[in-house]
Amino acid sequence: MFVLVTYDVNTESPEGRRRLRTVARICMNYGTRVQNSVFECVVDSVQLMEMKTKIGEVIDPAIDSVRYYNLGKHGRDHVEHVGAKPGLNVEGVLIL
Amino acid sequence: MFVLVTYDVNTESPEGRRRLRTVARICMNYGTRVQNSVFECVVDSVQLMEMKTKIGEVIDPAIDSVRYYNLGKHGRDHVEHVGAKPGLNVEGVLIL
Repeated sequence: MFVLVTYDVNTESPEGRRRLRTVARICMNYGTRVQNSVFECVVDSVQLMEMKTKIGEVIDPAIDSVRYYNLGKHGRDHVEHVGAKPGLNVEGVLIL
Repeated sequence: MFVLVTYDVNTESPEGRRRLRTVARICMNYGTRVQNSVFECVVDSVQLMEMKTKIGEVIDPAIDSVRYYNLGKHGRDHVEHVGAKPGLNVEGVLIL
């Protein structure tokens, strides 16, 4: 399934920037970074649970906000991009 | 329908911050701000086109990135929040 992860953290602090980097690294194991704090992931239910657990261990729930949007199997068909930095199609990447 | 708008802009410049404020004002006419640059909007197809046109007039397409995710009619059922600042349910707001 296609899951969007949006992460809101105050990047003015070094700790915030570190947490954002770590969350980005986790998400990039499952998909791609399409904006500074927006990640598009392609996962099955086990991977989704695994990803959420890892992210949960990194964030500071008192000040950070994470939202997961499950767009289902054909979620990528419902995305429109305008402007700079279009995202990569992670499902279209060939693994050689 | 439930449409997510994510906006990536360099807020280190006053112009970037101004554009983000303007995009936020536009989106907040159609929904709510759930993260610094993530907006959840509830719109019909005419309103969606209207909103996209207004946003298109504000952003700098050479450096800003906007993504629209159409989660359909029951999109709100597929959102999960973790941590601080949960979003308001704009569909649940009573207009008196």
